[in-house]
Amino acid sequence: MVNYPNGKKGGWTAAATSAGRRGMNLESDINRTNIFYLDRDQAVIHKKPTPVQIVKVDYPQRSAAKITEAYFKLPSTTDYNGIYRGRYIDFEAKECSLKTSFPFKMLHPHQIRHLDAVLRHGAIAFLIVRFTEYDETYFIPARNMIDFYNTADRHSIPYEWFGKTGRIIPSSFLKPVDYLQIIDELYFTEGGSLSDG
Amino acid sequence: MVNYPNGKKGGWTAAATSAGRRGMNLESDINRTNIFYLDRDQAVIHKKPTPVQIVKVDYPQRSAAKITEAYFKLPSTTDYNGIYRGRYIDFEAKECSLKTSFPFKMLHPHQIRHLDAVLRHGAIAFLIVRFTEYDETYFIPARNMIDFYNTADRHSIPYEWFGKTGRIIPSSFLKPVDYLQIIDELYFTEGGSLSDG
Repeated sequence: MVNYPNGKKGGWTAAATSAGRRGMNLESDINRTNIFYLDRDQAVIHKKPTPVQIVKVDYPQRSAAKITEAYFKLPSTTDYNGIYRGRYIDFEAKECSLKTSFPFKMLHPHQIRHLDAVLRHGAIAFLIVRFTEYDETYFIPARNMIDFYNTADRHSIPYEWFGKTGRIIPSSFLKPVDYLQIIDELYFTEGGSLSDG
Repeated sequence: MVNYPNGKKGGWTAAATSAGRRGMNLESDINRTNIFYLDRDQAVIHKKPTPVQIVKVDYPQRSAAKITEAYFKLPSTTDYNGIYRGRYIDFEAKECSLKTSFPFKMLHPHQIRHLDAVLRHGAIAFLIVRFTEYDETYFIPARNMIDFYNTADRHSIPYEWFGKTGRIIPSSFLKPVDYLQIIDELYFTEGGSLSDG
C-alpha cells in the first residue's frame, strides 16, 4: 500500500463510512425529522422543553436574565405532541442499549397514564423505541405497550415482542425517523389495523 | 359610623370582597382549570414547560443534579396544547394591563405562524386574553386574531374588538377559566359558528 506523502494513511475513519446517522441520537433524529415535516407543512409536531424548576434568577444590567439555580423536574406528560391530518399526535421516544429487553422503568407511570388518557380522547399515541445495539427503531402503538404493561408479570418487554408488535420506522437522510409513513399505513389506510375506516 | 375600639375602621379591603380569584393570575387560573378537566377526564391539556437553554450542570454526590447556568429561550410555539373530544387543541394566553388596546408585540411572530400552521392541519386554535383592568377574560378564535394581524394597519387591537369578536369565558371557583364551554358552543354545536356540522 502506498502511503500519502506525509507518511500517514488515508484519513478515513469508521465514522465516515457508517451511512446516515453518524453518532446522532434518537432525539436529534426525531427533531430533524419534525423540522422536515414542518418545513413541508406535513405536520406540526414539536418536542416539549425539558421541565425545569427555576429557583434563582439573576438580572444583570444590560444583559439577559441568568438562571443560577434550577433543578430537573419529572415530566408529567410525554415528550412530543402535535397535529397531523387533523389528528392529535402524542408519543414518547426511548433509546434502549440492552440487547434482550426493554425495561419498564424507562417509562414513568404517569407517562403511561398520560398515553392512556389521550387514547381515550381520540389521540394517535405511540412509542418510538430504538435498540441501539441493533440500530433498529420501532413504532409501537401505545395501546399495545399499555396492555403489555398492565398484564405482564415481568419488569421488561422482550426484544422479540417489538419485532412482532411494532413496525420498523424507515430512515433516510432527510427523515431519519420517518414515523408519519407508519401512521399513514396504520391509521389512514383503508383496512389499516388501527384506522377508523 | 362606629369605629373599632382601636380607632380603625373595619379591615375589609377591596381584595377581600372581589369574589373568586383573589390575586391569582391568568396562568394559574388556566392551570387550575386544566387540572379540573384532567381529573374529570374531560380533556387532556397541559402547559408546556418554559423553554430554557441549559449551559452548566453540577452533579453533587448524593443529591440531585443542579443547573447552575441557564437562560430563557424564546418559545417557538404556544404555551398550551392537548386534546378534547378528539380534536387537537392549541392556544396562547396573555394578560393585558392596558385599558384601550392589546399590543401585537405581546405575541411573537412565530407564535402567530404556529397558530396559522396548526389551523391548516385542523386544530381548534385560539387565544385567551385577560384585560386585568376590567377583569374580563376573552376567548378569541386564532383565525380572527391572525386576520386582524395580517390586515390591520396598526400595532394593536382596540379593546372594543374583543367584545365584538370574542366571547367572555365563564369563571367559577373550580373552573376559573372554563374555556371548554366556549369550545362546545363554537365548535361542537350544530350551527355553532365554527363547527363542521
